Amino acid sequence: MTEQYIARRMERIAPFYVMDLLAKAKQLEAAGRSVVHMEVGQPDFAAPAPVAAAGKAAIDAGKTGYTPATGIPELRQAIADHYRDRFGLAIDSHRIIVTPGSSGGLQLLMGVLINPGQEVLMTDPGYPCNKNFVEFVSGVPVSVPVGPETDYQLTAEMVRQAWTERTRAVLVASPANPTGTVLSRDALREIYQVVRERGGVLIVDEIYQGLIYELEAFTALDVADDIFVLNSFSKYFGMTGWRLGWIVAPPFFVDPIDCLAQNIFLSCSAPAQYAALRAFSDDCLAIFEQRRQEFRRRRDFLLPALQEIGFSFPAVPQGAFYLYADCSSLTDDSFRLAYDLLEKEGVAVTPGKDFGTNRAAQHIRFAYTTDVERMNDGVERIRRYFR
Amino acid sequence: MTEQYIARRMERIAPFYVMDLLAKAKQLEAAGRSVVHMEVGQPDFAAPAPVAAAGKAAIDAGKTGYTPATGIPELRQAIADHYRDRFGLAIDSHRIIVTPGSSGGLQLLMGVLINPGQEVLMTDPGYPCNKNFVEFVSGVPVSVPVGPETDYQLTAEMVRQAWTERTRAVLVASPANPTGTVLSRDALREIYQVVRERGGVLIVDEIYQGLIYELEAFTALDVADDIFVLNSFSKYFGMTGWRLGWIVAPPFFVDPIDCLAQNIFLSCSAPAQYAALRAFSDDCLAIFEQRRQEFRRRRDFLLPALQEIGFSFPAVPQGAFYLYADCSSLTDDSFRLAYDLLEKEGVAVTPGKDFGTNRAAQHIRFAYTTDVERMNDGVERIRRYFR
Ligand SMILES: Cc1ncc(COP(=O)(O)O)c(C=O)c1O
Ligand SMILES: Cc1ncc(COP(=O)(O)O)c(C=O)c1O
Repeated sequence: MTEQYIARRMERIAPFYVMDLLAKAKQLEAAGRSVVHMEVGQPDFAAPAPVAAAGKAAIDAGKTGYTPATGIPELRQAIADHYRDRFGLAIDSHRIIVTPGSSGGLQLLMGVLINPGQEVLMTDPGYPCNKNFVEFVSGVPVSVPVGPETDYQLTAEMVRQAWTERTRAVLVASPANPTGTVLSRDALREIYQVVRERGGVLIVDEIYQGLIYELEAFTALDVADDIFVLNSFSKYFGMTGWRLGWIVAPPFFVDPIDCLAQNIFLSCSAPAQYAALRAFSDDCLAIFEQRRQEFRRRRDFLLPALQEIGFSFPAVPQGAFYLYADCSSLTDDSFRLAYDLLEKEGVAVTPGKDFGTNRAAQHIRFAYTTDVERMNDGVERIRRYFR
Repeated sequence: MTEQYIARRMERIAPFYVMDLLAKAKQLEAAGRSVVHMEVGQPDFAAPAPVAAAGKAAIDAGKTGYTPATGIPELRQAIADHYRDRFGLAIDSHRIIVTPGSSGGLQLLMGVLINPGQEVLMTDPGYPCNKNFVEFVSGVPVSVPVGPETDYQLTAEMVRQAWTERTRAVLVASPANPTGTVLSRDALREIYQVVRERGGVLIVDEIYQGLIYELEAFTALDVADDIFVLNSFSKYFGMTGWRLGWIVAPPFFVDPIDCLAQNIFLSCSAPAQYAALRAFSDDCLAIFEQRRQEFRRRRDFLLPALQEIGFSFPAVPQGAFYLYADCSSLTDDSFRLAYDLLEKEGVAVTPGKDFGTNRAAQHIRFAYTTDVERMNDGVERIRRYFR
């Protein structure tokens, strides 16, 4: 059994290029070489102790069975309360659907919203999986090239231009991966208006919400109630491997999403849900705030250090923990550069190619998910490479 | 935003009917009524203490980040070793793909194998989600009515009859939900041959593997190497809410499955994987064996007790923890009966309707996932209802 047994969608679903790079990094490390990891898309902080303890307590109490497909009611309520406390928004907990990571949320939304052949607009560069969630349900991902002029974000005008009669949804992320840029409330409102005028839906990925360094954190739900919002315990809450996220959906969509979640997931991780319940308490929120400050320090270290070497950042990365560096004054082959940096200097970064095709060869993503000292070492190595 | 925004596939994806029944059961319990639960599709045993301890240790050690999409190598190896120790089969650990429950495995297989419009054959009655995994990727689920004559399983002849030029795969389960019946090695081999002759693939759901009471447990991999096998830590291993399962795939398919898993799941639960690693040690296997004996005792209590009342079991339920009772001599509306039993007597069961349309109104599913004493109480209540 070979090729002819593989569904055609798999021709359009690419693995992450960085995986191969990571495998190479592992080999090098196994052979005794030191590697500075600046490719990792997850915080180097685990869940705070109280969250971990809550997860363990759930295990001890045998709270490890299937839960309702939309999550335990307490957690849905805690998330709703979070919107009230943090953003002053009254969101009915019924509108919160707990998911296996925001990955699970993306699957549910595409499944419930997108018919085969319908188009979903998104940015290039953007989170690599986005287009594949659309492919999975036989939709058509449409990547719109974005650059520093618009902070690597879509604008209302771009949405208008790219819209066809087959367009059903627009997916944006703020702060975004790989660029760390944010959409302003006004920009988001304009996009929302265009989308709604045309009878489409707006999906906003807020998985990096809270990881923002100058501006005030805000949520798209502040712009309108009938926006689909994705979020996750992975990044701000430091719980990547627990696999937990959530959707906020307009009330009419909750039942269909529930129905699909019952069928394709049955349930999210029970220990993760009990653990996450603890994440909204003041002590944990204080820890997350400290971590945010730490990420900010790292960004403020890394950005000028890379600029000095010759990388440029024509748009300010306001959030997340990524710098999407324009390396065109250093190379016209960022893929080669990524391998070279790894093999010659032991620095792992993610090539632009993983995020799309729009000037991908002129970009590289640095993640500041490692401490300043280690990054300093990484920067030294990169400097040496270009010497 | 209402109906017109919902993707058409959702018209064909039904929620579980038992969910509404469960909500009603909860209301009754909240109002102080006692309910005997014989509808629950999960063991009343949690993970054994050493497994729970391993999960907690992983949390303590901060092993809670993303893992490789196909699972941590140690767990893939442990599962491969399990096939060697239990079934005398040499399976390369590379062929084991760890998934978020076998639900995740079903998604990956349909995604990698089924093109829009291609048909997947399955039994009616059968596990309700199966057809929806096919719908999700715009495939066409084809339910073949099965009855006690063939132990509620497909036969090679049925597959031959149902095959069209659009058929791509056959999905069987052994032991099966809701019937608890198993496919013999010979029956499976015959099906396999028909499927392969026609250029299709055979998928065998072995999630209830090990929960079998007279016959010897076996795996479809014993019949042929190019069968896709699904399994899970949910049932035999008592880890439903941890969300972990696995696929065994022919080597050629591992990379495409990995690619899809990277994109749609990123990673399985890390604590669950470290916990599950502990499940294959002798002490845990001894616990699972005791539990199997306990399930057997329960079946041997419940089956004759229900027969006495007038339910019949024209095919012997050999495994899993379900009895699929023919109630045609008692009612011709099992859906009504399920509600009546709940409302009048406080007994929760699952109506046949949840498992398909083939004589569904004449069947009801009992789960023996509660102890004999409690079931005895349930049986008394049912007896009273029919008096
Ligand atoms: C923009 C964006 N969305 C979604 C995800 C999915 O993460 P998770 O499934 O862990 O919530 C990621 C992960 O890196 C991401 O960067
Ligand atoms: C036959 C069958 N397959 C698959 C599943 C999915 O279970 P899980 O995702 O917990 O492995 C179930 C759950 O009840 C089942 O009965």
